[in-house]
Amino acid sequence: MSKQPVQLVGGADLEDCRVPLVAEPLTADQAERLAPSFKALGDPVRLRLLSLIASHAGGETCVCDLTEAFDLTAPTISHHLKVLKEIGLVTAERRGTWVYYRAEQPALDLLSTVLSVPQGVNA
Amino acid sequence: MSKQPVQLVGGADLEDCRVPLVAEPLTADQAERLAPSFKALGDPVRLRLLSLIASHAGGETCVCDLTEAFDLTAPTISHHLKVLKEIGLVTAERRGTWVYYRAEQPALDLLSTVLSVPQGVNA
Repeated sequence: MSKQPVQLVGGADLEDCRVPLVAEPLTADQAERLAPSFKALGDPVRLRLLSLIASHAGGETCVCDLTEAFDLTAPTISHHLKVLKEIGLVTAERRGTWVYYRAEQPALDLLSTVLSVPQGVNA
Repeated sequence: MSKQPVQLVGGADLEDCRVPLVAEPLTADQAERLAPSFKALGDPVRLRLLSLIASHAGGETCVCDLTEAFDLTAPTISHHLKVLKEIGLVTAERRGTWVYYRAEQPALDLLSTVLSVPQGVNA
């Protein structure tokens, strides 16, 4: 996958955070910029929404398919999608009647790298 | 690193969640069990504490070294360490005067896997 720069948290560039925390401690500033992304994932509905979007064939999902999967009102789903979008974990595009969501794979990959445990590091 | 079973969130076994969410959507139950771990990481102080513990030589850190790194009171640091411990991201061991913290690498690895983007999946 591409390693294009990731823009998260209202445009804060997190590229300098793409290091396993097992390998190098985060600075206070890096932790401040990274934490909101994990907080966004810290809700079961958002986590499941993101997984539904990210795993959908073609990497894109119509909002109409997302609302069907939950026993929640459309405004509640919309709120959670907005949080994911604002933090940069998904992008949205309106085409005709519906909005289509796509997972931001570089953002996911960055957060995965932060939590990764490279073999032999502090084992 | 070892792939021993991970016990997180008060003993909830998350081994069945060790799948990239890009590859397979989470069930509602899996999302409920995973979200609290990401929520625990969604705080800058906890994220930095975890990185200081995890990256410390030998993978272990004395609480005395952690309190020095922050401009926060000892009870505040203790509260955040307790959250990380209860969710299973660190373990603690008292030896003499001090408590020593160690990062739970299998737990980190599991969360990293959930967010990982295997090459070619929904690219």
